Amino acid sequence: MGTVEPVIPVRPKIHNRSLETMTETATSELDDSFHVFDTTLRDGAQREGINLTVADKLAIARHLDDFGVGFIEGGWPGANPRDTEFFARAQQEIEFKHAQLVAFGATRRAGAKASEDPQVKALLESGAPVITLVAKSHDRHVELALRTTLDENLEMVRDTVTHLTSQGRRVFVDCEHFFDGYRANPEYAKAVVRAASEAGADVVILCDTNGGMLPAQVQAVVSTVLADTGARLGIHAQDDTGCAVANTLAAVDAGATHVQCTANGYGERVGNANLFPVVAALELKYGKQVLPEGRLREMTRISHAIAEVVNLTPSTHQPYVGVSAFAHKAGLHASAIKVDPDLYQHIDPEQVGNTMRMLVSDMAGRASVELKGKELGVDLGGDRELVGRVVERVKERELRGYTYEAADASFELLLRTEVQGGKPLRYFEVESWRAIVEDRPDGTHANEATVKLWAKGERIVATAEGNGPVNALDRSLRVALEKIYPQLAKLELVDYKVRILEGVHGTQSTTRVLISTTDGAGEWSTVGVAENVIAASWQALEDAYTYGLLRAGVTPAE
Amino acid sequence: MGTVEPVIPVRPKIHNRSLETMTETATSELDDSFHVFDTTLRDGAQREGINLTVADKLAIARHLDDFGVGFIEGGWPGANPRDTEFFARAQQEIEFKHAQLVAFGATRRAGAKASEDPQVKALLESGAPVITLVAKSHDRHVELALRTTLDENLEMVRDTVTHLTSQGRRVFVDCEHFFDGYRANPEYAKAVVRAASEAGADVVILCDTNGGMLPAQVQAVVSTVLADTGARLGIHAQDDTGCAVANTLAAVDAGATHVQCTANGYGERVGNANLFPVVAALELKYGKQVLPEGRLREMTRISHAIAEVVNLTPSTHQPYVGVSAFAHKAGLHASAIKVDPDLYQHIDPEQVGNTMRMLVSDMAGRASVELKGKELGVDLGGDRELVGRVVERVKERELRGYTYEAADASFELLLRTEVQGGKPLRYFEVESWRAIVEDRPDGTHANEATVKLWAKGERIVATAEGNGPVNALDRSLRVALEKIYPQLAKLELVDYKVRILEGVHGTQSTTRVLISTTDGAGEWSTVGVAENVIAASWQALEDAYTYGLLRAGVTPAE
Repeated sequence: MGTVEPVIPVRPKIHNRSLETMTETATSELDDSFHVFDTTLRDGAQREGINLTVADKLAIARHLDDFGVGFIEGGWPGANPRDTEFFARAQQEIEFKHAQLVAFGATRRAGAKASEDPQVKALLESGAPVITLVAKSHDRHVELALRTTLDENLEMVRDTVTHLTSQGRRVFVDCEHFFDGYRANPEYAKAVVRAASEAGADVVILCDTNGGMLPAQVQAVVSTVLADTGARLGIHAQDDTGCAVANTLAAVDAGATHVQCTANGYGERVGNANLFPVVAALELKYGKQVLPEGRLREMTRISHAIAEVVNLTPSTHQPYVGVSAFAHKAGLHASAIKVDPDLYQHIDPEQVGNTMRMLVSDMAGRASVELKGKELGVDLGGDRELVGRVVERVKERELRGYTYEAADASFELLLRTEVQGGKPLRYFEVESWRAIVEDRPDGTHANEATVKLWAKGERIVATAEGNGPVNALDRSLRVALEKIYPQLAKLELVDYKVRILEGVHGTQSTTRVLISTTDGAGEWSTVGVAENVIAASWQALEDAYTYGLLRAGVTPAE
Repeated sequence: MGTVEPVIPVRPKIHNRSLETMTETATSELDDSFHVFDTTLRDGAQREGINLTVADKLAIARHLDDFGVGFIEGGWPGANPRDTEFFARAQQEIEFKHAQLVAFGATRRAGAKASEDPQVKALLESGAPVITLVAKSHDRHVELALRTTLDENLEMVRDTVTHLTSQGRRVFVDCEHFFDGYRANPEYAKAVVRAASEAGADVVILCDTNGGMLPAQVQAVVSTVLADTGARLGIHAQDDTGCAVANTLAAVDAGATHVQCTANGYGERVGNANLFPVVAALELKYGKQVLPEGRLREMTRISHAIAEVVNLTPSTHQPYVGVSAFAHKAGLHASAIKVDPDLYQHIDPEQVGNTMRMLVSDMAGRASVELKGKELGVDLGGDRELVGRVVERVKERELRGYTYEAADASFELLLRTEVQGGKPLRYFEVESWRAIVEDRPDGTHANEATVKLWAKGERIVATAEGNGPVNALDRSLRVALEKIYPQLAKLELVDYKVRILEGVHGTQSTTRVLISTTDGAGEWSTVGVAENVIAASWQALEDAYTYGLLRAGVTPAE
């Protein structure tokens, strides 16, 4: 590229699509010239630790359609009963606003007829309007894994594509191991692309199945194949080199018009190209509209919702959508951010539905404690001595394992305590508590907790059972306090996280518990740290109820 | 790049460096022509959730030097006492084999003399042989954040670099916000590079401080700046677009010869360019030796060791070094891997000290259960009916929340149970157990557990205290069993993980506990799932002790 002046787009406005680019076929309001193709339900489900039920798959499909992807690959109908059931129910139960449902399957068996291949039949029976066929494009895979001849493999591609299109289905072809195959035998790899395209496949997807490629290689191969075959090309990248997003964009730079991704980058081994940074780069950096108007702002919410469904904690450090993605910690930055936030953010977090956060930590220093105070509506107005005390207190607590970055409510209680000159907010005084877990000979468990506390001059002793010791403590505390503070009735624990701080010491470690509580209107997080999980949970529960009463506007006891 | 035939290197051998490329200055056996520069201790420490003590920093520095990086940026001496202490102790306590210690600091204050600036003095006093100066290169930052003129900023760079080199230090200059600055005012951004280079800085690092760049942009800017200034250039990339690794490689493609990275990609917001995939790509994909001979094979161990020190769970899905990075789940793959593993791996895992794993999961089916059996030394022969039973059992347990992907020992116990026709391995029969946690008015806690069990026909009742209920149960079980099985004396719990399976239900959720145990020779993981953390922990403990006895070669009771 020599000394050519590079084009760096300034933060672009999303283009309004013009009417003449509309097509009949696409259910989405976008035209067909660029495909955002999601395979979370098929390739994403290969991730270690993910096991999706049909209900999970339906829930994820709704989120993906809500986000506005053009295609949702639902699985391999016929290969397992779960996927077959998914296709049946998805078409009955979901009214897709944007996406088309895609069935994944393989080319017909060697030496058979596509029209008679039961696996191919199952794809048609799924009722999906679009079918992705996986085809071998690496000569060694054809010979060693598929155990057939190179010519028969080409025939399998032609026959299966022709049969499915003759049945009125739109067909995409995934060329498995394409880049490794291209390295080994470029002519054969390209022959597979031509066979698929000439037989009527709308898009031929070049797959970096083993994920070993780098962007420069992907860009070079895609441009060459595009020039030599003229087929419409797509890209399917795995993240084994940590470059899946960049590889996907490199393919687009080289002329690919179809990107296959998964939500949060879920997928086998390291994972697939992450749908969210790919879409965000295309819309915000390339200025190319690939989602329906306004959907990008839902990205953070949808990313977290999908993580909930697959039951994985959302990655706090995921680009664009992680809770840390726009979190500022360094004291240096924090002070300058007061001048102009845009100096320290590559995009406005609201464009992706995320928000800027100031972190409280012993590295942050005064500047961010002040900003955090403002954020919480506690004005520390220049009181240097007070701010200093808060910073000290945070340092001292963080040394003991507390973290306030993830426990805003506990931090606000700490802040208000210091504002009141060290006098903590008190709605109740705990005398003692006890939790018992007993395993009965029949294998069932008894969980019982007793709390003794004082509130508004009254001594209360409450006992409750629960499905576990923490739940029993939660209930006994609630039973004890509700008599005096009926406002607590609507409080509900919505999340409970346990972190062992020194894993190397096994069960002898310090335990940190984070609890999220809601009163229907809002949600808040509290932290507890102790030598055991029950005691740590208790601390977080006490903060959670105290903050709940504060939010409810109850005046603390003297 | 049009239709130029791409160059895709086949998996390369690491080049042997030739003698004439050696230099006097570098402590590493590598020459100075390419720098692997690590900033985990400075920029990496900005990550949300990381708080490093001096001891942590010393431990990490040892790991980084062991890995073989050329430069270790230790922090900002003078800016905080912790970093000042680190530099003093690192030079006394660590005998660096490969790395040079680098102090980070800023250019002198506006309108002062570098020779009289206390912050600059502190850099010299740190004793570090190399100093990285951060300089503003974005005109708006100079005016709004630094509050000085563009000319004075250039003078600050010249004066500080000249002063430090006159004191015999090697100087690198970080151009903060370079890429945004280049977009706003390319001539000024380049003027900063020239000022630093002409004043004697050995390397000028172009920093994508806000992390908004994409590889094509980085490559274009770096080539232009290189051509226009002739300075030796480095790259510092943040991962806000998910492209930090690719951006770093794009800069190298454009002629940068110095890469700044952090271990495991730790860093502010989303993080920095991850040292490990960058180094692995350079050595394994580019065939460029950037580490001393043979160090790449230590990468996985060192990545996990550093995660331990910063007290973050190692990312299971990190490229090259994650435990999932070479884990195969799909039944399709599993069967073909029997034919030739290299068909399904982009590199040999041993090149980075990682290993291939077969995962047991309801998606995997028979092929991987058989492979897993072999891996565990349990031959399932072709017994289709037995393999089928195991697959069924795994499916049914996984539905209830168990996971065997992370609990090899529990899976082996399940496997052996099925091999024995459903008869579980038994060394002891538990009658019942109980755990009590009591909070005393003085704020301390009493944790007590009682276990009643039968072993070798003897009924044993044991009670023990612990620092928590699980620890108390662990001890009581040990007390009860050691009388009969002295082999258990050397067992130690080394890790304890708790996962709440349905976070949305708060404390009412199912709990999964994973425990790792060691007998000094090896380590094994077991799983327990129950409605509460204590009961789940108990299950995992029972499996852990049972497997420990199996490993010790003790014959089970009849």
